[in-house]
Amino acid sequence: VVDRLQEIISSAWGKSMHQWASDLFPICRSLTGEGVRETLRYFQKLLPGLVIHEVPSGTQAFDWTVPNEWNIREAWIEDSNGNRIVDFANHNLHVMGYSAPVNQVMELEELQEHLYSLPDQPDYIPYITSYYKERWGFCLTHRQRQQMKPGKYRVYIDSTLAPGYLNYGELVLPGQTKDEILLSTYVCHPSMANNELSGPVLACALAQWLQSDPRFVRRRHTYRILFLVETIGSIVFLSRGAEHLKRNLKAGFVLTCVGDDRDISFLPSRLGSTLADRVALNVLENHTERFTRYSFLDRGSDERQYCSPNMDLPVVSIMRSKYGEYPEYHTSGDDLSLITPDGLYGALRLHAAAISILEQNDIYRLTVMGEPQLGKRGLYPTISTKESGAIVRDMMNVIAYCDGRSDILQVAQHTDLSALRVVELMKPLIDAGLLEKVT
Amino acid sequence: VVDRLQEIISSAWGKSMHQWASDLFPICRSLTGEGVRETLRYFQKLLPGLVIHEVPSGTQAFDWTVPNEWNIREAWIEDSNGNRIVDFANHNLHVMGYSAPVNQVMELEELQEHLYSLPDQPDYIPYITSYYKERWGFCLTHRQRQQMKPGKYRVYIDSTLAPGYLNYGELVLPGQTKDEILLSTYVCHPSMANNELSGPVLACALAQWLQSDPRFVRRRHTYRILFLVETIGSIVFLSRGAEHLKRNLKAGFVLTCVGDDRDISFLPSRLGSTLADRVALNVLENHTERFTRYSFLDRGSDERQYCSPNMDLPVVSIMRSKYGEYPEYHTSGDDLSLITPDGLYGALRLHAAAISILEQNDIYRLTVMGEPQLGKRGLYPTISTKESGAIVRDMMNVIAYCDGRSDILQVAQHTDLSALRVVELMKPLIDAGLLEKVT
Amino acid sequence: VVDRLQEIISSAWGKSMHQWASDLFPICRSLTGEGVRETLRYFQKLLPGLVIHEVPSGTQAFDWTVPNEWNIREAWIEDSNGNRIVDFANHNLHVMGYSAPVNQVMELEELQEHLYSLPDQPDYIPYITSYYKERWGFCLTHRQRQQMKPGKYRVYIDSTLAPGYLNYGELVLPGQTKDEILLSTYVCHPSMANNELSGPVLACALAQWLQSDPRFVRRRHTYRILFLVETIGSIVFLSRGAEHLKRNLKAGFVLTCVGDDRDISFLPSRLGSTLADRVALNVLENHTERFTRYSFLDRGSDERQYCSPNMDLPVVSIMRSKYGEYPEYHTSGDDLSLITPDGLYGALRLHAAAISILEQNDIYRLTVMGEPQLGKRGLYPTISTKESGAIVRDMMNVIAYCDGRSDILQVAQHTDLSALRVVELMKPLIDAGLLEKVT
Repeated sequence: VVDRLQEIISSAWGKSMHQWASDLFPICRSLTGEGVRETLRYFQKLLPGLVIHEVPSGTQAFDWTVPNEWNIREAWIEDSNGNRIVDFANHNLHVMGYSAPVNQVMELEELQEHLYSLPDQPDYIPYITSYYKERWGFCLTHRQRQQMKPGKYRVYIDSTLAPGYLNYGELVLPGQTKDEILLSTYVCHPSMANNELSGPVLACALAQWLQSDPRFVRRRHTYRILFLVETIGSIVFLSRGAEHLKRNLKAGFVLTCVGDDRDISFLPSRLGSTLADRVALNVLENHTERFTRYSFLDRGSDERQYCSPNMDLPVVSIMRSKYGEYPEYHTSGDDLSLITPDGLYGALRLHAAAISILEQNDIYRLTVMGEPQLGKRGLYPTISTKESGAIVRDMMNVIAYCDGRSDILQVAQHTDLSALRVVELMKPLIDAGLLEKVT
Repeated sequence: VVDRLQEIISSAWGKSMHQWASDLFPICRSLTGEGVRETLRYFQKLLPGLVIHEVPSGTQAFDWTVPNEWNIREAWIEDSNGNRIVDFANHNLHVMGYSAPVNQVMELEELQEHLYSLPDQPDYIPYITSYYKERWGFCLTHRQRQQMKPGKYRVYIDSTLAPGYLNYGELVLPGQTKDEILLSTYVCHPSMANNELSGPVLACALAQWLQSDPRFVRRRHTYRILFLVETIGSIVFLSRGAEHLKRNLKAGFVLTCVGDDRDISFLPSRLGSTLADRVALNVLENHTERFTRYSFLDRGSDERQYCSPNMDLPVVSIMRSKYGEYPEYHTSGDDLSLITPDGLYGALRLHAAAISILEQNDIYRLTVMGEPQLGKRGLYPTISTKESGAIVRDMMNVIAYCDGRSDILQVAQHTDLSALRVVELMKPLIDAGLLEKVT
Repeated sequence: VVDRLQEIISSAWGKSMHQWASDLFPICRSLTGEGVRETLRYFQKLLPGLVIHEVPSGTQAFDWTVPNEWNIREAWIEDSNGNRIVDFANHNLHVMGYSAPVNQVMELEELQEHLYSLPDQPDYIPYITSYYKERWGFCLTHRQRQQMKPGKYRVYIDSTLAPGYLNYGELVLPGQTKDEILLSTYVCHPSMANNELSGPVLACALAQWLQSDPRFVRRRHTYRILFLVETIGSIVFLSRGAEHLKRNLKAGFVLTCVGDDRDISFLPSRLGSTLADRVALNVLENHTERFTRYSFLDRGSDERQYCSPNMDLPVVSIMRSKYGEYPEYHTSGDDLSLITPDGLYGALRLHAAAISILEQNDIYRLTVMGEPQLGKRGLYPTISTKESGAIVRDMMNVIAYCDGRSDILQVAQHTDLSALRVVELMKPLIDAGLLEKVT
């Protein structure tokens, strides 16, 4: 059962996603600035309909204000011999995100207050930001830091923090109805791979697949695919589109941390019983060997906004190793070697399965009284084996719960089957006129 | 507690049931034909009000058509020396049910395609039928089959497959209301004992008991007792009576596999929360040492029709070793030695308990405010022992849940008591005017 | 978390409660009589508003009748040498409660029928009563009883059993609304400590605290504090006040067995889901190391009346070692050494926590869309530590469930927090205008 998902979506996508991540890895992204725009333009080439929005600094969005735009050109620390011992050119994690400009000579002791390293992970550069309080700082490996000798150092950051724009990308794929599926990801993290280039490349793959797969030409749902920056980006988006989503959103997924090949993780919606929860759980229970089930109390990405109490949207997260739960999280260890084509494909196919089910999640009713006679319609397997017995049993079980009230996900739950298997078993029954859709 | 059921129904019924099964064992029953009618006439002698219905071949019933009637007189395989090596006269399982006539000489190799045996159970003859595709075949022990040497064999089946009738027996015991209890069993299996003579003899015993026990002269419910043939029989019956059942049926039981003395099994209704489920579970939880709880997905008898999604009737099954779950199932090993008077009585008393509870399952309310003073009414046990303390505690607990909303089964669930014990504890309280029925 | 309750109520109350219990211990209480009145007058001095009601013998109360008043002055057994071998003057448990007067000489054999002792606890005098059947009797240690030699004994009980009054104390502390909290305890047990002086002294402490703590000057609820006698007392009270309670009672607590320092116990209401259950469980789950959760079927005090099916009031019991569950129960072993200031204070603070929560258990809603920005309001902890991270996480979780529908106890359940912690976390958010009360 686990493997059947390759019929829905090809594993070839794994390599494409990893290639996109590799292309995007070096760019220095942040909440705002050129790195975000460069990233969005990259996706725009892959997704021609993608619209890049810009929102001026200072714009109010609910309880928040769009911050100034941050750009950085150069940053380093030189020792008294003119050796550049830390250089932004080598790794863009070396500078604290949103660092103010600085150009100073100071003693190591004073400099220490502006240095960030990880004593327990001495080979990783930490990822540190200070979006809402003006500071400057450098991040480095603990090993580097320990080698720094007392003396004078020149610190230089050539950055600007000035009115500009917050950007985000939005792609709308119209469906036959106004009912919406939301795919939301974010592009504000600099050179890290699982968190977070895996989410954007998954969003891109899903968007291309939805447009290319003949099964989705006549799709029921409208798909809204968002490339935001975390927190302020989703707040800005919601401040413009919350009422529309409240009216139309059927299910949404925050795409984040979907690239490694270790764990599979689930984060439910606020109350845990929306359509998004139901479809995700059916997919995870039937198409993974195992997964870790988190509580909404463990949330940490944009579901914080989508599921805030005055929104309460049906949004969940299917992840690989969840943010905060793997050792390389928010360090330079979260690099391109951590994510794999297989890991990315593993997440892709779970999301594709969820989408495929949502497109078909109707309510059916049996058109005859009592059990139908399958034999006269040639619906019994022609050869009788142990497996064929199981097929007949599953088919009769599906029939038993097509009661005109239960949607396919509920039928799947009653019958202990994957919803995709239910759909497959129902097909010949629908063709034979034994099941009909309730509208 | 387990043993108290003998007060409801005597263990003497065990021997009667086993005797009836012994009388009926040799008859060659099938979906249709003389064997079914002979069996029904046998029960008609024991249950004078039993009506034997006949439905012509070709009659439409929902999605099904009544098949031709099958009768068989003689069938055997002779080797080239004229030895009858397989003979229907020795065991009526030797012929595949609904076998077309044949009279041919053929090589063993060709004959093999018409032979059925069980390599893993080499001493048992399997039970095989082909109701809806015309075939012929012989069933034999694997040991017999292995002794057959290459060469020519004469195969002879003197059967007829022709328009006739499908028969079923129906006994209605009118009650004071139109509310119905259904007892449904089937008589289409040839010489096998647990599956299936145990069900019909249990139905017969319950019907005799309901008519003879003075406690049921003024019974509340109308009882409908059906001796059908499996699947097509219940479909035919429902095609004539479904609307009536949908309006009036309160609880129903499919009586099948109730004769051995190994397991006790429970098969719930489709959604698992009907009155039939509630009463069965209260009986099983309180009057058995242990029982196996199956899922509706494990169903396999006429609850498939009663609980089909457009019927959704409150029908469950209380069994001993469930069909498909014991080694002798659908073989000649399921003979009269497999069922015992004790095994049959064990099932009888569980059904009698369920019926007894259903007849009394009213809603009561306490007539006083606060707790009643039992002492002044002599309702405290006259001698104070550990046991009497438990009686008072149980009585006060029953009072605490007689709230004018909970039926006796719900009071039993709240108080962790058997519903029969609740009834017993309520009796003196009703007599004292402390509890009154809510109508 | 366990220890935070000292902020609600001071541990100094433990000593006061133990002192009151010591003062009251020698008094011979029973269902009626001078001992009850003396006890009530003691509490009246501590609680000036306490009203002592009197209800004449013979008064009907629901299904019960107020019994005659019992008073006793002297009681003893003398052997033939004039030695007083059992004397009420030494311990008032020596006389069976409600003993009729007697003055007789009799052989030991005849006397034995009137003696009560505990072979398994040979050093304890049992507590025995015969309220509703006229008897006389003496209770003694089994060791004393075994030393009694055959011969003549004089038995003397100078008691009166005659029309008089049943008394109870009632203190009403009016609040800003008619919504009521009930604290009910009983004063009918002679010289025993956990069961039952602990309950009355706890009721007294809570009543003093409610009147003295500045946080409760403007209390929302009206508090009704009852010093009853068990069963007949609560029935008499309810026969006068049930309709009022049915309309206004929000939560009630039977205060009993709250003085030792062994177990903590919980007895739920009849259906187990009232506000009283919810607040008690939140307190016990968050402010005890462990507690024993009993079923309503284990009840034994005045919740029997409050939760009787025609009352169905929201009343529960938070206890230390529950009646019937500790070895000294209903014997002279339940003396002042069994209860401790710490044990009493342990129960006091759990009840004070429950009251404190009930006073604040409102429904709040978040006033902004999306998550609020805590930083700009200075609501982030100024120093970032592991602990401060937990505080922010808890605060955001509380915000996530302030949805305008969940009361504070429900928010606490969703967030796995103590309700008191939820209140604490909400305070700055309310002050900042981020949360507002739903009315």
